Amino acid sequence: MRLQLMTWPEVERYLARTPAILVPIGSTEQHGPSGLIGTDALTAEGLALGAATVAGAVVAPTLAIGMAQHHLGFPGSASLRPSTLVAVVRDLVVSMAATGFRQFLFVNGHGGNIAPLRTAFAEIYADTSFAGRAGALRCELFNWFESRALGPIVRELYGAAEGSHATPSEVALAAYYHRGQLRDVVLEPATAPGGHDFQDAADYRRRYPDGRMGSNPALAREEHGARIHDAVVADLLEAYHALIAA
Amino acid sequence: MRLQLMTWPEVERYLARTPAILVPIGSTEQHGPSGLIGTDALTAEGLALGAATVAGAVVAPTLAIGMAQHHLGFPGSASLRPSTLVAVVRDLVVSMAATGFRQFLFVNGHGGNIAPLRTAFAEIYADTSFAGRAGALRCELFNWFESRALGPIVRELYGAAEGSHATPSEVALAAYYHRGQLRDVVLEPATAPGGHDFQDAADYRRRYPDGRMGSNPALAREEHGARIHDAVVADLLEAYHALIAA
Amino acid sequence: MRLQLMTWPEVERYLARTPAILVPIGSTEQHGPSGLIGTDALTAEGLALGAATVAGAVVAPTLAIGMAQHHLGFPGSASLRPSTLVAVVRDLVVSMAATGFRQFLFVNGHGGNIAPLRTAFAEIYADTSFAGRAGALRCELFNWFESRALGPIVRELYGAAEGSHATPSEVALAAYYHRGQLRDVVLEPATAPGGHDFQDAADYRRRYPDGRMGSNPALAREEHGARIHDAVVADLLEAYHALIAA
Amino acid sequence: MRLQLMTWPEVERYLARTPAILVPIGSTEQHGPSGLIGTDALTAEGLALGAATVAGAVVAPTLAIGMAQHHLGFPGSASLRPSTLVAVVRDLVVSMAATGFRQFLFVNGHGGNIAPLRTAFAEIYADTSFAGRAGALRCELFNWFESRALGPIVRELYGAAEGSHATPSEVALAAYYHRGQLRDVVLEPATAPGGHDFQDAADYRRRYPDGRMGSNPALAREEHGARIHDAVVADLLEAYHALIAA
Amino acid sequence: MRLQLMTWPEVERYLARTPAILVPIGSTEQHGPSGLIGTDALTAEGLALGAATVAGAVVAPTLAIGMAQHHLGFPGSASLRPSTLVAVVRDLVVSMAATGFRQFLFVNGHGGNIAPLRTAFAEIYADTSFAGRAGALRCELFNWFESRALGPIVRELYGAAEGSHATPSEVALAAYYHRGQLRDVVLEPATAPGGHDFQDAADYRRRYPDGRMGSNPALAREEHGARIHDAVVADLLEAYHALIAA
Amino acid sequence: MRLQLMTWPEVERYLARTPAILVPIGSTEQHGPSGLIGTDALTAEGLALGAATVAGAVVAPTLAIGMAQHHLGFPGSASLRPSTLVAVVRDLVVSMAATGFRQFLFVNGHGGNIAPLRTAFAEIYADTSFAGRAGALRCELFNWFESRALGPIVRELYGAAEGSHATPSEVALAAYYHRGQLRDVVLEPATAPGGHDFQDAADYRRRYPDGRMGSNPALAREEHGARIHDAVVADLLEAYHALIAA
Repeated sequence: MRLQLMTWPEVERYLARTPAILVPIGSTEQHGPSGLIGTDALTAEGLALGAATVAGAVVAPTLAIGMAQHHLGFPGSASLRPSTLVAVVRDLVVSMAATGFRQFLFVNGHGGNIAPLRTAFAEIYADTSFAGRAGALRCELFNWFESRALGPIVRELYGAAEGSHATPSEVALAAYYHRGQLRDVVLEPATAPGGHDFQDAADYRRRYPDGRMGSNPALAREEHGARIHDAVVADLLEAYHALIAA
Repeated sequence: MRLQLMTWPEVERYLARTPAILVPIGSTEQHGPSGLIGTDALTAEGLALGAATVAGAVVAPTLAIGMAQHHLGFPGSASLRPSTLVAVVRDLVVSMAATGFRQFLFVNGHGGNIAPLRTAFAEIYADTSFAGRAGALRCELFNWFESRALGPIVRELYGAAEGSHATPSEVALAAYYHRGQLRDVVLEPATAPGGHDFQDAADYRRRYPDGRMGSNPALAREEHGARIHDAVVADLLEAYHALIAA
Repeated sequence: MRLQLMTWPEVERYLARTPAILVPIGSTEQHGPSGLIGTDALTAEGLALGAATVAGAVVAPTLAIGMAQHHLGFPGSASLRPSTLVAVVRDLVVSMAATGFRQFLFVNGHGGNIAPLRTAFAEIYADTSFAGRAGALRCELFNWFESRALGPIVRELYGAAEGSHATPSEVALAAYYHRGQLRDVVLEPATAPGGHDFQDAADYRRRYPDGRMGSNPALAREEHGARIHDAVVADLLEAYHALIAA
Repeated sequence: MRLQLMTWPEVERYLARTPAILVPIGSTEQHGPSGLIGTDALTAEGLALGAATVAGAVVAPTLAIGMAQHHLGFPGSASLRPSTLVAVVRDLVVSMAATGFRQFLFVNGHGGNIAPLRTAFAEIYADTSFAGRAGALRCELFNWFESRALGPIVRELYGAAEGSHATPSEVALAAYYHRGQLRDVVLEPATAPGGHDFQDAADYRRRYPDGRMGSNPALAREEHGARIHDAVVADLLEAYHALIAA
Repeated sequence: MRLQLMTWPEVERYLARTPAILVPIGSTEQHGPSGLIGTDALTAEGLALGAATVAGAVVAPTLAIGMAQHHLGFPGSASLRPSTLVAVVRDLVVSMAATGFRQFLFVNGHGGNIAPLRTAFAEIYADTSFAGRAGALRCELFNWFESRALGPIVRELYGAAEGSHATPSEVALAAYYHRGQLRDVVLEPATAPGGHDFQDAADYRRRYPDGRMGSNPALAREEHGARIHDAVVADLLEAYHALIAA
Repeated sequence: MRLQLMTWPEVERYLARTPAILVPIGSTEQHGPSGLIGTDALTAEGLALGAATVAGAVVAPTLAIGMAQHHLGFPGSASLRPSTLVAVVRDLVVSMAATGFRQFLFVNGHGGNIAPLRTAFAEIYADTSFAGRAGALRCELFNWFESRALGPIVRELYGAAEGSHATPSEVALAAYYHRGQLRDVVLEPATAPGGHDFQDAADYRRRYPDGRMGSNPALAREEHGARIHDAVVADLLEAYHALIAA
């Protein structure tokens, strides 16, 4: 269930049963010459909705602007400062806690969000720790691209051409949710230069001239996305059930 | 065009022509016993996409969490602190400016966002004003619920039962975008107590027990939404063309 | 009564009766070649003192530095960043609440303060809303230049030459409080270019070269100020009595 | 000259000669059962105007709300958080620097402001130091209550009954500027308990039950204020001339 | 070389050769009934000094207060808020960059610091990314407890009793630097309950009553520390040489 | 006792007796051509440990990065922004208070820290003052270089060549703690130009080209350090006993 399509009495009834929510968070950033700028948000949203449908869980609106300072060398990228993202996550959790939510599972589609998200969780917990009180909130992070079930599929489908940004797996998953969006663009070289190293946006663009990191997204197919979706949703459901049982 | 469904080279070509973007911003908050929690974001998004299709403009991802502290007495509402919303808007504008955007038209669906948005614009402009430099950015605000074309339609369709929160006009517009979502809920009284006065969430709930302010959203019909959409999109297009001509 | 000229036992007795205070807020900014830099603060202060004398109310010290980033292209202008003004208003309200004040009526002389003031009010209310508690504070905003009684007088005295910055009405009101301060300066053109559009300070100065917006302040007379004072004070008293009755 | 009573072309001419300004800063806080709440701001303002008249200098609007957290146990006191006061001073200086001011002499009437003011100066200087650039701003602090010329007068007039808060010297000086404001209140004991030690507002009130620290303000006379004014203004002029010669 | 024991001309000569610095960062937090509160800082410092001696590198003063909100249920723990730690790291890097340092290798002894450190690096890089400029700074993180060479040693010496907080490996390493500090305390149970799961300080103490997580620090010996030191220093040197070659 | 070398049960027993702690705070900044960059932190630490040994008190880890924006013109200097230092001190105090500490004596070795420290104390106290509650914390500041016992010794040993930065007294004290670190550097002139006046780092370096202010640190001897240590520790012990008796 999308929270946006519920009414408050419906949420009230839901909370009496399960004070948990899935929060998709992505980014708005270049994904190479052929990948969609919204990839990280679209995939996080699709997975969260997939899992929620099975589990009868509520899904918050997607946080589509993440921490992507290193992609600002490419048109169409946008970013929050890390400290702003920390504040957003903190406010979201604390304000929803005021209405009865206690357990927050962030379904994350972007590596650059990990540190700010964990920082935000610590900031939230610090409120009660510094005050010498006991809190009741629990925040968990599910990075779908690190999902256990994903590895074998990716190795089978793409091998070393998976790379680490604008990967065929994320491109395929986004294409599964948004059919007909696979671009027919010639990528040169087919597989981009690899590495995980970068500092600011200028440095990133110097190292990875077309935005991709070690990937060949031309390998992506919509039907791959279906398979990835199913596998990752299963992992996500496990994380969700662990959270509400905690 | 949704920015999320573009690639960076496509944005680069777009920017060579028009360094402008529409940014839908809404809220996640109760809309009475029958209205959708996502109403403000869904309507802002629908209108922005409608105008963008006509104008060939780009639409940023929707900022769905707004400033809704006064609605936190109702389950499912969420809010940023005003100061956090200011930071979000500032970062979004400044980061996209780094990639070439110059003109930002915020399409807003929520009254509570107005002051933080205007504060954010001033904060952005203050950067160059305090530094004694000339800036190049331009931010404009289009509050669709204050749209000129809306008034006559609303008066005709709902008269005094429009009210000021969980209004039949916004409920109809959201239902136009999300068919089949009109709830069949008995509202008591049919038209909620009116007024515009509230302080914090406890005060709001005391004054407006079921969340509505002076409205009877049971009057909303999906087909009203179509009419509202067309009228407001026309106004929005005017604002957009004024912006890019500035 | 000016709070500054009271002792704390006198305030204690006052609070037992009325936990309300008037807070004048203005700006320190250019008002064209002939207008006083302090116009917005001096007028807000004069009106607040006028109303307080009638109502037996207390008046806080005037907040004379407002949000005037757009005027920083002219010597003598000063400004807080919007976020700083938000913090100032929040601290003032919260600290005075610690000593017993509950109702705050900001008497504002400057358009640029409106968004930060409303943002600050929301920030104050958010403290209790986010904590799930009920607060007791009430902040209201009275923008004297939007006062109901002002319109007819201005139309009669100045017509279209009122403009929107360095207006004859504000110049006249300031001159009423500070006699002998009307400057005999030749304004070219007599009525300045109009419009309401500006971004940062450089943009403002480019559009409005001598600082005025659409006004001819040479029309101002001290005796106009007396008339404006009386009319606006009556409106302000109404707002004050509504506040303390709330 | 009060900046508030100047026009921007007048400031422009002044700046061509002297890019310096006096900024009075005080506090709004209890001054014992008989002292005025505005004492610190009224005295700072009176001294600054006195010196400015002699020197032909410009005086900024008085910052009347200072850092007075320890006085919040008494009705009518108000305070900024220290960090807010730092931001206010920084914005004031940086924004006025954008219009041409370079030298800022803060005329301070309140001990609690000293640390935040010095912190703000360091924050301002840090902007260029951290950026590896050379700045052009100079901020100085004149605490009138520590003025060299004041000591002998105070010892002669009040001896040990001067104390350190709600002192007869500050009460006399405020009364000199605002005639007829000396209260005829019985103080018990005549000279309040002394000491300089306090933490928060509750602690302060416990130690100093009527707000005074070691003082007998009943000794204050308006004519003392005249004498104090003349002596301190001479010191202040010396500080001003040192600043503009730097 | 410890920066603290150098003079500025000596640093100047060093910078002409290598604009790099090692920055030890730890925490001040409980390490179970027998572990030292300073363990994380003492170990980070010892390793950094060990590597620096070999490499001829400079070592900054140790940042001994880290992000340890979850340990505040135990006496003697201290913590920065995550956002404060971000600011500290940012200021340290930016200020030292003003004097010529370009490469910063943080030698970290505490898991809770990882997210704030990575957030701080992103915040630093965002300064140039948001401004559309190219920066020159490079920050790297070396978490010694994740050092490649450490795993085999730990498995050999402690097996499953290594656990994840108050581990015998960190206790041994601290004891190697501070001889005679191994406490002879009976631990019950010998190996503490395991897990990696906790939210705030109250939650942590409930799950891990004596502070240890899955460890038996009674296994630690000073001579183990020597072996760990040598192995980890070798890894650290590799990281350092990679940094200065970048 | 160094807190870092204690276990949490040991701190628990200590707190049952004395909820007080000594917190050394210094700076990392140039101290002229011959003085150690760590002088301010090393001396603060040495004195705190000296006093603690006598009094049986606990000593926190040294805060070695202070507010030294004005020294950033010299290689090896580092600084926190003043506002960051305020946050650090606040977090340290509030977090340790959560574990039972109530009295904090900051042993300070650097003039530039004074204003931020006092600002931080006020910020901490403001938390309870603004909330209308009574707090229990007490923070005191001991600036060793202003110690009463220091004056006569310095006048005897160094006379006017003590100066005010890179003084022979601080150099001698640091050399007493770190034997063999006195540099044999020719200083020209022997006694540096004096004054106390500076703004930002560029201004400081212009006025004080080699970093010293009015001092001749070549006069420092390790044995002077011993004498200074004993005298200042006696003063510090007095301050400590006054604090725990308060």
